[in-house]
Amino acid sequence: MRVVLATRNRHKIVELRRILAGAGLDVDLAGLDVFPDVPDVPETGATFAENALIKAHAVARATGLPAIADDSGIAVDALNGMPGVLSARWSGRHGEDRANLDLLLAQTGDVPDERRGAWFVCAAAAARPDGAERVVEGVLAGSLAHKPRGEGGFGYDPIFVPEGESRTTAELSPAEKDAISHRGRAFRALVPELRALLEG
Amino acid sequence: MRVVLATRNRHKIVELRRILAGAGLDVDLAGLDVFPDVPDVPETGATFAENALIKAHAVARATGLPAIADDSGIAVDALNGMPGVLSARWSGRHGEDRANLDLLLAQTGDVPDERRGAWFVCAAAAARPDGAERVVEGVLAGSLAHKPRGEGGFGYDPIFVPEGESRTTAELSPAEKDAISHRGRAFRALVPELRALLEG
Repeated sequence: MRVVLATRNRHKIVELRRILAGAGLDVDLAGLDVFPDVPDVPETGATFAENALIKAHAVARATGLPAIADDSGIAVDALNGMPGVLSARWSGRHGEDRANLDLLLAQTGDVPDERRGAWFVCAAAAARPDGAERVVEGVLAGSLAHKPRGEGGFGYDPIFVPEGESRTTAELSPAEKDAISHRGRAFRALVPELRALLEG
Repeated sequence: MRVVLATRNRHKIVELRRILAGAGLDVDLAGLDVFPDVPDVPETGATFAENALIKAHAVARATGLPAIADDSGIAVDALNGMPGVLSARWSGRHGEDRANLDLLLAQTGDVPDERRGAWFVCAAAAARPDGAERVVEGVLAGSLAHKPRGEGGFGYDPIFVPEGESRTTAELSPAEKDAISHRGRAFRALVPELRALLEG
């Protein structure tokens, strides 16, 4: 069975293949890079779950194959839970990790340690071309570092320190990150849902 | 009686003099431009009221005169009430009105009209050198425009449309703006509090 991963972000494709293989999902996973004609979908949802479902449905319709999608981001206490669904375009330019992270650090420059709480959120969705859908969420609690550290991961990983850790998520090994990450948790929870959807 | 306005923002000094004179306050108002040695205070409060009080107390202590201060900003529904207390440094650089406004427009570019609600908030505080204090708030509800319009006002005025208006606050005359604005409401409410403080 072939399933489409509704993303062109190569970091995400690598991470999701690794997580789903680790969770024992035995399907042929194709990234959107193999479907250059599928148009980009505007992510206009007010929540991560809405956006993940919008993307999964759009790709399932366009390809005629079951699709899985995620929408993830960082929520910062001192910003009332933002950047949230705007994480990937916080600086106003989509997908510019460094600009997004630098802006978040500049905005929270005066925020003291006791108010630097933050959490990573991932909504993982699956959709069939006929419209059937599932969506689940995973969360990783932590706090904002003052400066980027580490070369791993992507997005806000270099400035996020998980609860109980001293390293940022960019300083964890891929296996360490997958074990605790919002995306690891969400996609492991999605696997049984996806199986039910593929068999249903 | 001399009272210090705890701001170096010349737009704000002009606006506050106008509002306070209109409310019949008969004191000698000096801007911080007359006190070049008063150090800037970091605005680390989590609320507008906290920041207004921090500034009023710092200036009253430094000058030995009663001081009034405000902290104001724009709160956007789709950003969970942010930029909020970070309004003046939303782009990461303090006081760059155009950069702040452009970033807010870029972040909310995909937010549809029905979710573009926003409100201006102003906390106005007064403090005596001995530590006595008062603080009040004023609010103006409205929505975010898609593009800047108008040459008046400052800050986010060119992209804020008050409820019941079709013009932005930057397209209103100063008198029209003062009559409804968050800052007009807050400082008119502060006048009796300030009188009590000066007499007490």
